[in-house]
Order: sequence, then C-alpha cells, then structure tokens
Amino acid sequence: RQAMASLATSTAAAAAAEVTHLSQRDAADIDEQLMGPLGFSVDQLMELAGLSVATAVAEVYKLSEHTRVLIICGPGNNGGDGLVAARHLYHFGYKPFVCYPKRTAKPLYSGLVTQLESLAIPFVPVEDLPQDLSGQYDIVIDAMFGFSFHGTPRPPFDDLIQMLVSLSVVGDSAKRPPIVSVDIPSGWHVEEGDVSGGGIKPDMLVSLTAPKLCAKKFTGPHHFLGGRFVPPPISSKYGLELPPYPGTSMCVRIGKVPSVDISSLRENYISPELLENQVMPNPFDQVRLT
Amino acid sequence: RQAMASLATSTAAAAAAEVTHLSQRDAADIDEQLMGPLGFSVDQLMELAGLSVATAVAEVYKLSEHTRVLIICGPGNNGGDGLVAARHLYHFGYKPFVCYPKRTAKPLYSGLVTQLESLAIPFVPVEDLPQDLSGQYDIVIDAMFGFSFHGTPRPPFDDLIQMLVSLSVVGDSAKRPPIVSVDIPSGWHVEEGDVSGGGIKPDMLVSLTAPKLCAKKFTGPHHFLGGRFVPPPISSKYGLELPPYPGTSMCVRIGKVPSVDISSLRENYISPELLENQVMPNPFDQVRLT
Repeated sequence: RQAMASLATSTAAAAAAEVTHLSQRDAADIDEQLMGPLGFSVDQLMELAGLSVATAVAEVYKLSEHTRVLIICGPGNNGGDGLVAARHLYHFGYKPFVCYPKRTAKPLYSGLVTQLESLAIPFVPVEDLPQDLSGQYDIVIDAMFGFSFHGTPRPPFDDLIQMLVSLSVVGDSAKRPPIVSVDIPSGWHVEEGDVSGGGIKPDMLVSLTAPKLCAKKFTGPHHFLGGRFVPPPISSKYGLELPPYPGTSMCVRIGKVPSVDISSLRENYISPELLENQVMPNPFDQVRLT
Repeated sequence: RQAMASLATSTAAAAAAEVTHLSQRDAADIDEQLMGPLGFSVDQLMELAGLSVATAVAEVYKLSEHTRVLIICGPGNNGGDGLVAARHLYHFGYKPFVCYPKRTAKPLYSGLVTQLESLAIPFVPVEDLPQDLSGQYDIVIDAMFGFSFHGTPRPPFDDLIQMLVSLSVVGDSAKRPPIVSVDIPSGWHVEEGDVSGGGIKPDMLVSLTAPKLCAKKFTGPHHFLGGRFVPPPISSKYGLELPPYPGTSMCVRIGKVPSVDISSLRENYISPELLENQVMPNPFDQVRLT
C-alpha cells in the first residue's frame, strides 16, 4: 500500500512535469500563427478563451457559495478574455461586476462592453472599489495582463495589483474571495514568475492554449488549461504535451486535485428527467448497463 | 401511481408547448439586433452556435458508436455553423468529413475552412459522396439552410436533400446514420415545416437561439436548444420562454428524454483523479457530503 501510494504520487508529479510550458516568445508566435496562416479571428479565440475561463471557475467555485464575481480587466487581450468570461459567468447564473478602467477603442472591445451592458452587468470605477474586496465579492478574477506583458504595471493597475496582494495575505481562501488569474498572474514576469516575491498569489490559474513558463512557480490549489483549439501543426511544431480535455469540456485540470468534494460533482452530474411513467417495477432494469 | 404518471406526462407536454417558437421575421430581427445594437460579431455568434451543435451531438451520439460524421454545409450562416461544429467535433474525438460545395468568399468563411484544413479534415466533393451514405458515415449533419431560407433548393443542394430523404426512409436509426439538422431541416418551410411531406425527417434538431415555428412539426426523438447568449432585452421583447441551460452546458434538451441510458451518463461523469494517498481508511469519510 505504501509503495502504491508513492508510485501514484510520483506518477502524478511526473505527469505534471511533462506538461509543456511556453516562453513569452513562443506564446506570441503561436498566437500570430493561429490568427495568420491558421485562419482564426481574434473574436473566435477570445470567445473560446473567455468561455474556458468561465467554465473552469464554475467547476471549482460553486454558484451556491460564490455568487458575486469581480472581474478586473486590463486594456489588452487578457482584459478581453475577462470581458467574455464575465458574459458567460452571467449566463451560468453568477452575478458579475466588471472593473475595466482603460478601455480599448477597437470594435471587438466596445462590442464586448455593449454585450455586458445589455445584461445589466455593473461596471465599477476603480475609485468605487472598497480597499478590502472581501466584503463585496465572492471571487475576484485577475484579467489585467497576459503573456505579452513586460515592464512595470502603470496606474491604476499597480494599485489594483496591490489590492489583490493585500487580499491574498489573508491566506485562507475560505475567509476571503479566491483570486483567479487568467493565463498569467498580473505583475508576474511571464517566464520568471513572482520575481520580487511580493506579487499576487492566485488560488487558481487558468492557462490558455498552453501554460507559460511562470506557471511552474504557481503553487495554488487549482491549475486549469483552457483554449481547446490547438491544431496539430502547432502541437507538433512546439512539441506540446498537454492533458487531454475530457468529453466536451472547454477546460481541463492540470495536476492533481487537492481534495475530492464529491458533493460538488453530484451537482455537476446532470441527470435527464426521469418521468414517473418511465420508472420500471424492478429498479435493476432501470440502471442495467447495455 | 397511474394518476401521478399521467400528471407527469401532461406536465411535460405543457412544458414543451410553452417553449416559444419564432416566425421567420422575428428570427431575422433578433439576429439583426444581436449583431447591431447588442454588440455581437458574426464570428462570436457562429462560434457559440457551432459549439452548441457539436455539444448536443456529442450528448446524444456516443463517440464509441458514432465516429465518422459527415457535415453537409450550405453557402450561408447555417453552413458556417456546420463548419464550426466540425472543428469542435474533431476536438471532441470524432472524425468529421465536410461537404461544402458552394463556398462563400467572405474572410470568416475562408478562415473556418483553413481551420478545418489544419486539422486535416477531409473536404468531400459532392460527386464523391456515395448514393447511400450508410456505409461510410455514422452521423450526418444537415447544415445546408437556416431560418433565412425561402423558395426551392438549387443544385447541388436539391440532390443532397434527396440523399438525406432516402436515408431517412430506412426508418430505424440504429441501422443507418442518424440525421441531425441545424436550426431548420433543410428544404422545410421555416414556419410551415415539411409542406410536401417528402422532405428530410431528421432524428435530431438543434434549434439555435430559440426554436422556429417549423420545429412544432418536428417529431424526431431529440430536440435541443443551443446558442446560450440570448440577453434579457431580447427575451423580454419577444416574450421568449426557453428551458434553462443546466450548469455550464452549451445546449439543453427540449421536451422529455425518450429513454434513459444510464451507461452514457456514466461516461459523461468525469471524476477527478483519486490518488492512492488520498484514499481514506473509512470509505464513508471519503464520500461524506459536507
């Protein structure tokens, strides 16, 4: 039994180690190829990325315990993923709030804002955010900066990042809203991670397309992969080793589950209506596997 | 018990009757509003529509029994939904084949084709299709014409429709590939349905946004709704009564399930890894609902 346990643990560790982590350069190259010779539009990729973020959040943080979601969106594509995630979270039953202080003028972005406005999702100005986010939100999504980020965050994102740093100082995510970072914890070096050690410590990371190098330094309990659209020419060119997505899911967990909460699985288990006239006299006939 | 059964049946019938069915005019109006004042791009809506078709197909037709999927795409948006569905079905593990005889020159459509080509999905010319599709395909998706169709189908779609009509004459979908129609069974009148009585009889209909009037005449075993993006201004303006989507699913069944196949549900039930060192001495502790 001991031997089996250590075998299972080392196998899981080996599997986690085998997942590919991309450099900033390769991540940018892949994006360029997807949107160039591989024929994707930004709209499509952002829609699928944002949907996978929303799906991963819903898989971990149950609606019944986490209703109010603050999504903090940066000016670029990472922020766009956050805007899309906000819309899908609304449709999943959550109550999203969006903080989007530096809006991009492109039609795609103004369209995403219009879509959220039609859902009556509140846009919260930075100055209206409470210094301690704990009281008003049950989840905070960090969609400020993605893999193309470099340098030092400028206002108001420097303060917003500090707000999330203060939040994670509490430690126990049962007593404060968990922090979910989209692709990269904002302010982290894309390859080196939290260089200063004083950055955001997210509870959940949703890597998109493939994890970036900084994800190796992520130590939170939930790491997911989203962006189920990587075609074989990309996988083979970059030698991508990624976990297989299960069924029709838009996201997949990377690494082991820290604890098994069977009750949440039961909620995700959608059974069809079993009508009274379909109930068989012998219950064993009902569930017979054919 | 008899009384309860009949109550359950009439409740289900009442629920089905309460689903809104759109006229051709209202369906076109809603699309215009989504892509106008409500800020959606065609790319986004088509991505979500095609994804919901693929998800609904995967929910009903198990990969283990239905691998090869022929998707017949028309020249317009319905065909575009089919192209998107083909891509997602590939990622779900199916083996799609696409028949797309009249290509649209717009960048969105050529992009969708490029995406499929990078997955090495075969494009089958009409003249290479066998007269009897049964031998080569396990599912046939009809994505020829949508809600904006009127008049008489032109070549080669007239022949393709007849090919699907011949297919459905066999009757028993266990002996032939089931036919899945996207939004409208092609060749049907959008409001009146199969006027001549000699049209396609699909086994599955995936209505998008909301069912169209012709869906009232659909008698196949599987009716799904997809397109989980309808905002409240549209729901209230058109008084839409639609079934709620479960969890994070991109599709929802309309009406009752014809039979309950527990084994397929078990396959869809994704359990997390339970590592050896997480197994508790008392199994009741493991599954305790907290």
